[in-house]
Amino acid sequence: MKEIVEGNILKSVNSPRDIKSLSNAQLHELCSDVRRYIIEVLSENPGHLASSLGTVELSVAIHKLFDIPKDTLVWDVGHQAYAHKVLTERKEKFKNIRKINGPSGFPRRKESPYDSFGTGHASTSISASLGMALADKIKNENKAYHIAVIGDGSMTGGEAFEALNHAGSTNANLLVILNDNGISIDEGVGALGQYLTKITTSRTYNRIKNRIWNALGGNKDEYNTHRTFFKRILFSIKSWFGGRSNFFEALNFRYFGPIDGNDLDQVLKTLQGLKTINGPKLLHIITKKGKGLPAAENNPTTYHAPGLFNSETGALEQKRTDKEQRKKFQEIFGGTLVELAEKYDNIACITPAMLTGSGLNAMRERFPDRTFDVGIAEEHAVTFSAGLSVRGIVPFCCIYSSFLQRGFDQIIHDIALQKLPVVLCLDRAGLVGEDGATHHGVFDLAYLNMVPDMVVSAPKDEIELQDMMLTAYHSGKPFSIRYPRGKCFNDCRTHNPQIIEEGRAEEVLKGEKVAILSLGTIFNNAKQAAEDLLKENITVGLYNMRFLKPLDTSVLNKVCSDYEYIVTVEDGALRGGFGWTVEDYIMKSNLKNKVVCLGIQDGFVEHGSVDELQRLCNIDAESIKRTVINLY
Amino acid sequence: MKEIVEGNILKSVNSPRDIKSLSNAQLHELCSDVRRYIIEVLSENPGHLASSLGTVELSVAIHKLFDIPKDTLVWDVGHQAYAHKVLTERKEKFKNIRKINGPSGFPRRKESPYDSFGTGHASTSISASLGMALADKIKNENKAYHIAVIGDGSMTGGEAFEALNHAGSTNANLLVILNDNGISIDEGVGALGQYLTKITTSRTYNRIKNRIWNALGGNKDEYNTHRTFFKRILFSIKSWFGGRSNFFEALNFRYFGPIDGNDLDQVLKTLQGLKTINGPKLLHIITKKGKGLPAAENNPTTYHAPGLFNSETGALEQKRTDKEQRKKFQEIFGGTLVELAEKYDNIACITPAMLTGSGLNAMRERFPDRTFDVGIAEEHAVTFSAGLSVRGIVPFCCIYSSFLQRGFDQIIHDIALQKLPVVLCLDRAGLVGEDGATHHGVFDLAYLNMVPDMVVSAPKDEIELQDMMLTAYHSGKPFSIRYPRGKCFNDCRTHNPQIIEEGRAEEVLKGEKVAILSLGTIFNNAKQAAEDLLKENITVGLYNMRFLKPLDTSVLNKVCSDYEYIVTVEDGALRGGFGWTVEDYIMKSNLKNKVVCLGIQDGFVEHGSVDELQRLCNIDAESIKRTVINLY
Repeated sequence: MKEIVEGNILKSVNSPRDIKSLSNAQLHELCSDVRRYIIEVLSENPGHLASSLGTVELSVAIHKLFDIPKDTLVWDVGHQAYAHKVLTERKEKFKNIRKINGPSGFPRRKESPYDSFGTGHASTSISASLGMALADKIKNENKAYHIAVIGDGSMTGGEAFEALNHAGSTNANLLVILNDNGISIDEGVGALGQYLTKITTSRTYNRIKNRIWNALGGNKDEYNTHRTFFKRILFSIKSWFGGRSNFFEALNFRYFGPIDGNDLDQVLKTLQGLKTINGPKLLHIITKKGKGLPAAENNPTTYHAPGLFNSETGALEQKRTDKEQRKKFQEIFGGTLVELAEKYDNIACITPAMLTGSGLNAMRERFPDRTFDVGIAEEHAVTFSAGLSVRGIVPFCCIYSSFLQRGFDQIIHDIALQKLPVVLCLDRAGLVGEDGATHHGVFDLAYLNMVPDMVVSAPKDEIELQDMMLTAYHSGKPFSIRYPRGKCFNDCRTHNPQIIEEGRAEEVLKGEKVAILSLGTIFNNAKQAAEDLLKENITVGLYNMRFLKPLDTSVLNKVCSDYEYIVTVEDGALRGGFGWTVEDYIMKSNLKNKVVCLGIQDGFVEHGSVDELQRLCNIDAESIKRTVINLY
Repeated sequence: MKEIVEGNILKSVNSPRDIKSLSNAQLHELCSDVRRYIIEVLSENPGHLASSLGTVELSVAIHKLFDIPKDTLVWDVGHQAYAHKVLTERKEKFKNIRKINGPSGFPRRKESPYDSFGTGHASTSISASLGMALADKIKNENKAYHIAVIGDGSMTGGEAFEALNHAGSTNANLLVILNDNGISIDEGVGALGQYLTKITTSRTYNRIKNRIWNALGGNKDEYNTHRTFFKRILFSIKSWFGGRSNFFEALNFRYFGPIDGNDLDQVLKTLQGLKTINGPKLLHIITKKGKGLPAAENNPTTYHAPGLFNSETGALEQKRTDKEQRKKFQEIFGGTLVELAEKYDNIACITPAMLTGSGLNAMRERFPDRTFDVGIAEEHAVTFSAGLSVRGIVPFCCIYSSFLQRGFDQIIHDIALQKLPVVLCLDRAGLVGEDGATHHGVFDLAYLNMVPDMVVSAPKDEIELQDMMLTAYHSGKPFSIRYPRGKCFNDCRTHNPQIIEEGRAEEVLKGEKVAILSLGTIFNNAKQAAEDLLKENITVGLYNMRFLKPLDTSVLNKVCSDYEYIVTVEDGALRGGFGWTVEDYIMKSNLKNKVVCLGIQDGFVEHGSVDELQRLCNIDAESIKRTVINLY
């Protein structure tokens, strides 16, 4: 990595303590230094760029005015917290962000006391902050401030609303900062987003409101005695200007803003003022996603996590090690879905705010009326899909594996119990690499395994993925398909999808003594292991199971009679997963085979490259090979 | 059961077809007949009384004016749908509601075509209805109406908000009827509830609004051309009266009401009017929970599901078969929690709208500041608990097992990943009986089993429950405790809780050849089986495992060496549960014992009494006994 030169002020800042004494001019310079530092580091070491560039001023202002961790600060989702990390004793380490043993891409309590609460999944920040605030009340410690910074995208998640509803009925000392960049990851969706735009564009109202506010005594105490009357006046004026900012006020939150969140002075002044106001309050700030790098400002979706780029021009660079130009699984998935949707007019797709990430842009262009981006709202996405299905649509509900944990109840209650033919498409299944512990899709096999009447599939590669999508369309049952983040294994030749017999495994290699049974794309490692073993004159059997449920018991019976040992391989949690399913079948059937289960042990896996993590979890080709050799 | 005499009009009504031709006077009489019928049936055959009494007029009006199932109708939660069931070809069957092979207490698609979407858990109705509405749009079938009836309690659930946010950005032909009785099951909580009260009490505003509305042309088309201008006027007036009804309008819903939902004529007239208005709209109706039975009106929480009562006076009757006056698990739980909270001032409890159901009334009375009813909001409840825990509070987060499925992601992401010592208290674990498939708490052992760093416990009875609560308080780890609905097994003598060694099983009976390993209160059946076997001179070993995780491997090793066969018993899903955990341990340890796993097979269990269902699932004492005998 090239040497990264820190700006002059940033050189002197290692912790929030160092910020407290800076002059206003120095704070401005610090923002500029931090922004440049993030751009320089991320141009070489990919991460979440655009969101973090938008929150530099906010991070500086918070650490100037508040005393974290005595006060608490929760970054919703957390990928916008890079400036916060740089400012909180992690400046040097930040160069290795998201790398194995480097800092996480998200706030983590175990990484730093300045990270009051770990995040990664959306919409948790208000709940967590409210908990901390009310805990302080229980302990009669009422001096601390509790801050949740939440994006407009995360605000659509149901949990955020649940928390607002609860908070509004308390006197918690809670400040919610709504970081509104008009974009979640793709462009914002839903009525709340439209509403926020309306508030924002109604500057006239806000100017007048603020003038009246000050004229009436501003934040002084006497305000509260006349609260109701003044509120009525404010509401009334608001309405004339179409401001409608009382969505939050209806939930008993005092609403402030919108202000320019990239205007450091305004942010400082407003936060300073808010320190004197008790009870739940919401500050609406408008920030520019990608601020400071024109290419990112103009194309925030691309620069959400852009990979390598030129730190001066912002020009994207190909990953230097990626010699092959293989497509991503997401491209294959999206392309195949368009083809199927062209053939079958009752196919629709659903995404909770991950349109681009899930490869669904082509679907939206070609079939806008059959493509539903429902916002960050996994619960709704699942039940909504079930509703579509009732009226004859076959929904492909596309959700990242770890995010679908949010829809677990709905999968059981709305899909499976009613036997509705919804196709759950679990993107980012298995170890996802640099996003780490919150994002690994390692539980889905286990949590879907227990759901009655669900077909649980995991194709071995992008070719079989296409077959499985066609199979799912025709199955007429609740059906799940999992596939990983990242590049395909083959050359992605044109493929005309074929229906796979439901629950049918594939014998790939015949062998002796040891059979490797693999589920999903981890097959690639199993196959490599088999090939490596062959070089050492060990001929193992290799089976691509394809389905966790229904399990191919006829193939399994044959395997049990032809081989002595079975090695199961999955890139998911062992507890309740594929290996355990095989073990249970063997015990129940009174078979004598010995089984070794490879997969994720009972623990969380941190971040790193997928290859590194697979080695760590003993599901890389070498570990599989070693496991087999140990059985000889 | 005594003979139930139907009213004259109800006699002639079997299906919605029969309602269409009734005169206004007859419709009024029908409401009266249906209400009386529900009261008569439920006085003898317990069920959800108060909610259903509030929605009689609404049910009659909907079936008079709409054409279900061509139009669709989703009852959120669904326990208020009894009138709907009586009116839709299930009048006779209704007498056996919630009994085995009788109708479900909730709408079920497989039970009737009039049940457009099955419910049971809260806050799904808008999502499902929106799905059906947009499916119709895809198919260019735009004539059907799509109705979601949702209570003010369910409206606080995050999924409902996610659905509103999505719906408001569409032109779906969706009518949300907000059935506001000011009460979820306990009294309503949260800011939204306070807000609804404000709207409701602001009748002046609503009268004026309606007058202006009509003066401006009412629902006629020309309204829409001037939409924005009129909206501004309406908003402005609204604000002067403090009505603030634009919470929903901020989400692009047209808001109508509030009207008296027990005034049949007003409901009919309003619904008729709304049929001419396109796009997403919300009708706010105020109903009286328990309407028509004064005792229930005055005490809606008690009469939510009152058990047996006198159909004339409403006086509650003791269950005739309940000779013993044993306490409920919930009473023991709640009482013990108060005792612990008296001793340890950092204990708090959290419930998502199930204060009474979870036995927490005493906690609220004694420690109001440490008792949090967060509304129907399981996701928030879990993360909020995690937040409390960060600041040194030990939260007892009390959620029914099947509802905690809603918090699955938060358990992983907010509690376990951060190793926060939250105590998850899973009430209604195992088969719950009459509430049926949506409510059985049968997945929790399996879904908690896969969560890293979680202690998963299941005490054998109410004595051990108390010990486990103390153990959990001191453990300093994420900790779950499950216990069932219903009566205790013992006499509930005063008990001074003792700490149990974490992960330590209990040897209850030494035996030979066969050992029964049981987890949780199903121990009661296992013990009965062991006693019955003894009468036939079969001496089995009996082990109360107490912890699914960590598993007591030292006891398990001893069991494996002392016995040939192991029978595991759990009242949860086998896939991924306790039995599988034992099997995996035995295979991994190269042990040769044969294991038979008793528990819930891979399928949904319907409603019936707990005893009936346990027999059906082969986890009653007789089935356990038979299983053991078959091993001889």
